[in-house]
Amino acid sequence: MKTIAFAGLGAMGLPMARNLLAAGFAVRGIDLNDTALSALEAAGGTRAASAADGVRGADALVLMVVNAAQAEAVLFGAGALAALPAGATVCLMATCPPGAVARLAEQVTAAGCRFIDAPVSGGTAGAIAGSLTIMAAAEAADFERMRPVFDAMGQRVFHVGERAGQGATVKTVNQLLCGVHIAVVAEAFALAAKVGVDLKVLLEIMGGSAAASWMLKDRGPRMLQDDPEVTSAVDIFVKDLGIVLEAGREAQAALPIAAVAHQLFLATSGRGEGRADDSQVIRSYHALNGTR
Amino acid sequence: MKTIAFAGLGAMGLPMARNLLAAGFAVRGIDLNDTALSALEAAGGTRAASAADGVRGADALVLMVVNAAQAEAVLFGAGALAALPAGATVCLMATCPPGAVARLAEQVTAAGCRFIDAPVSGGTAGAIAGSLTIMAAAEAADFERMRPVFDAMGQRVFHVGERAGQGATVKTVNQLLCGVHIAVVAEAFALAAKVGVDLKVLLEIMGGSAAASWMLKDRGPRMLQDDPEVTSAVDIFVKDLGIVLEAGREAQAALPIAAVAHQLFLATSGRGEGRADDSQVIRSYHALNGTR
Repeated sequence: MKTIAFAGLGAMGLPMARNLLAAGFAVRGIDLNDTALSALEAAGGTRAASAADGVRGADALVLMVVNAAQAEAVLFGAGALAALPAGATVCLMATCPPGAVARLAEQVTAAGCRFIDAPVSGGTAGAIAGSLTIMAAAEAADFERMRPVFDAMGQRVFHVGERAGQGATVKTVNQLLCGVHIAVVAEAFALAAKVGVDLKVLLEIMGGSAAASWMLKDRGPRMLQDDPEVTSAVDIFVKDLGIVLEAGREAQAALPIAAVAHQLFLATSGRGEGRADDSQVIRSYHALNGTR
Repeated sequence: MKTIAFAGLGAMGLPMARNLLAAGFAVRGIDLNDTALSALEAAGGTRAASAADGVRGADALVLMVVNAAQAEAVLFGAGALAALPAGATVCLMATCPPGAVARLAEQVTAAGCRFIDAPVSGGTAGAIAGSLTIMAAAEAADFERMRPVFDAMGQRVFHVGERAGQGATVKTVNQLLCGVHIAVVAEAFALAAKVGVDLKVLLEIMGGSAAASWMLKDRGPRMLQDDPEVTSAVDIFVKDLGIVLEAGREAQAALPIAAVAHQLFLATSGRGEGRADDSQVIRSYHALNGTR
């Protein structure tokens, strides 16, 4: 692995591509955003004239696009798959439903390329620091060949299975827990607020008890603010819990708690607050209970 | 505070009473279980012939009984309240619905005694180690007078409010988060199991990600076992999430996620598995999905 075509130079993709450059890989940027391509050039990368151009002679194509539809657009619409060398690797790192990932993998392998299903977690901060968690499903040899690329972008790199879709499932399970943990903190705080308990004391107590969660500590303080800084938007969990429920439908597994949590994020978005910080899902409880 | 009448020498009450003895308090045990009374005597306490006898001349009556009904039985049925000295403190440490606590407090203060609403968390291990979290609601002077007693039993002692019921609310919120966190780990693992992801790898990844919770780390490993050791039973959360929902009804606050989680514990109990470890709420998902 020497030359990486990198599609999707967004808030996470650009710092990930920069970390590849810093680790010595040749990186060709594929994006519709000219500013992002210039930023990659400034860091030592090159700008592809098109997706097909970008992948010619490349060892791998990394897809850090927004969703499965964009991945398809790059691979098929923009002709990247047809232009990739035989045996090159397509590495999908965007958060997509497991079923969609499995279908993409079939098309990629049918075209003579290798496929790795490798979503990430850790957010923009992890992308910048090169400390992402990477959950990769691939045949063992494909995973090993890709490992130096993963090590340049992530700190916790896991080989979670051999079948495409298993990486997406792990990420889905991760988002299921994250989304529900945020919503249930909102539910708990809304109850406490209605009874008149001091939420700051509550947060201190819960943070050190069996009730603690990573989300309680991270989102809890922002939940006490009326209009906190947006570190991740409500609409991200509208999308991600939507993927969780789609994964449940495909696997025919009941997800009653995730389904309820999704409704609360969805309603927040429906009231026009989808771009607020995701801690503000608590406003759905205030709306329900008439507490604001 | 020198002489404490202690009602309820169960798995938590007995070690809590022993810690009071170790801190220099005189402790009189009130319990129907002769073995528990003998154990308290062996640690330097005394055995009350009756609840009324036990509280005569005592500075405080600690109630570490199973529920509000037992607290009422000690106070009214067994005549403890009538026998307590005027101005003595009744300290309710059992987990009870906030509304029931507020009603008890009214009766106790009407009888000329002080009332402290002070539930605990930390389980049997915390009771033995004297490291309990204590969430006390009381007038400030009453709380301060009781503080040496609390310090002998707990490590994290919080004054959460002035009104009886606020301590119970904090404990309720704690149990809401705990119960939902267990159930949602079960939901996430059941999905992953159905898709064929290695649950041990999943547990390792989630434990270090934004999906982490105290319960994931504690209950997660036991959820992977078919018949784990019982550290806390399913029926405890049938009861505690029941109290959570009762608190929600009293406060007229919607608790949709807690309501769903309660159903899953309840169904586990309904299939005759109420005494299994609470991690086995995952069996409700297996039953739903037909995966076992």
